[in-house]
Amino acid sequence: MSDRGAAMVALERVASGGNRDTATRAVAVERPVAIEVNGLGYAVLMATPADLADLGVGFALTERLIDGASDVIDIDVHAAQQGDVLRLTVAPALAERVVARVRHRTSDSSCGLCGIENLEQALRPLPRVTADWTGDAAAIFRAYAALGEHQALNRATGAVHAAAACTEEGAIRLVREDVGRHNAFDKLIGAMARAREGWDGGFALLTSRCSFELVEKAVLSGCPMLATISAPTSLALERARTAGLPLHTLVRGDALLAST
Amino acid sequence: MSDRGAAMVALERVASGGNRDTATRAVAVERPVAIEVNGLGYAVLMATPADLADLGVGFALTERLIDGASDVIDIDVHAAQQGDVLRLTVAPALAERVVARVRHRTSDSSCGLCGIENLEQALRPLPRVTADWTGDAAAIFRAYAALGEHQALNRATGAVHAAAACTEEGAIRLVREDVGRHNAFDKLIGAMARAREGWDGGFALLTSRCSFELVEKAVLSGCPMLATISAPTSLALERARTAGLPLHTLVRGDALLAST
Repeated sequence: MSDRGAAMVALERVASGGNRDTATRAVAVERPVAIEVNGLGYAVLMATPADLADLGVGFALTERLIDGASDVIDIDVHAAQQGDVLRLTVAPALAERVVARVRHRTSDSSCGLCGIENLEQALRPLPRVTADWTGDAAAIFRAYAALGEHQALNRATGAVHAAAACTEEGAIRLVREDVGRHNAFDKLIGAMARAREGWDGGFALLTSRCSFELVEKAVLSGCPMLATISAPTSLALERARTAGLPLHTLVRGDALLAST
Repeated sequence: MSDRGAAMVALERVASGGNRDTATRAVAVERPVAIEVNGLGYAVLMATPADLADLGVGFALTERLIDGASDVIDIDVHAAQQGDVLRLTVAPALAERVVARVRHRTSDSSCGLCGIENLEQALRPLPRVTADWTGDAAAIFRAYAALGEHQALNRATGAVHAAAACTEEGAIRLVREDVGRHNAFDKLIGAMARAREGWDGGFALLTSRCSFELVEKAVLSGCPMLATISAPTSLALERARTAGLPLHTLVRGDALLAST
């Protein structure tokens, strides 16, 4: 748990019986993070300001701005008063792709496009999953049982999402946490890319519900299988099926739901 | 629960002991909703396609495009193949404000702005809360105890957020549900505005964690107090204090945390 991830605040605890006392407790830090790519402001995320270099690389990967961590020449985190600026410099060969995507995002948020045109851009086609997941349900139950002790920030603050990379056997390899479920997964994907580590037949376990963006991030990171503790949405199931991503949701100690 | 809010899917339930059986269950529908204001594509949200007219009005209010439901001349929901298009026509007097905001959003997502400029735009100043909250903690515990039976979509699907308008005494007046916590609150705010109902000294109870956008929506809707079942973030506490919004978080059956 980074010391920038949590902040101590003084609140008042009110019991249902009426007793009141001061409660000093840790809350998760939420702070604007502006992502700048090759000098162009690309997006502002609300994130927990820990592991920001991981976030930058993971975000650039799942936004399809880069193909691997080696495409990032430099990362700089600058703490401004209103938030953090995360400056990525990507390889010259990719500069054109970045500019094209910035233009695309600009029209996403509407230079005269109508709603139907915006809809068409919301769901970009996904590649097919080629990695094989060769594990079994027992590995998912093992990872679920082990995850809690790796969620330091969540234990301190509550309401923080975790994303874990697990081995084929269900051992936890690496965990990242954030107030946002997308950020937690991007941080994990970025951390693995920066360490030049692949999924190696393993899987990702996320504490959140399974919305469609998480399926997209899993597919784009080459993840062979995605498991989430909370429920899936209709679109997540649909996108996973189309891309050929095995999905396990509502993972609990006694059961889970499989969708293949 | 709208019949467009849930979809039945066939999954496989795998017990930790190894037993497998087919599980047909309801999942929350997640679908792109493109919001068009006076013919301009404004945003694409991922939402549960129920109560979309409420969502449109609430979103326009908390985006500060309109000042009240009477500023909306017409709402039309058009189901396209890729998602829904929600077309709002707002009063001619507001047309200029809409265009200015579309331009602003366009530069948010980066026509050559740098990260620092984007950061400055991420946290727009909030008005001060003028409504008095005159209720007490007992009302919050009452609303918490009553909320579950109003969450029809969540009972069926899991992982769906609810936003409830509560009376000063903690009775539940109105509930809206969505896969997104922002959408659930916007739907509630829009439903109240369309019915010309005010907060009348009551409060909003949300099932989600308290991130800063929910504080902003509460303030902008004139809500006198915000209560959330999950934990607050640092920025939510900070923004609520600055705006003068009483906040109660981690509301459970036996205790809650007050921040005033």
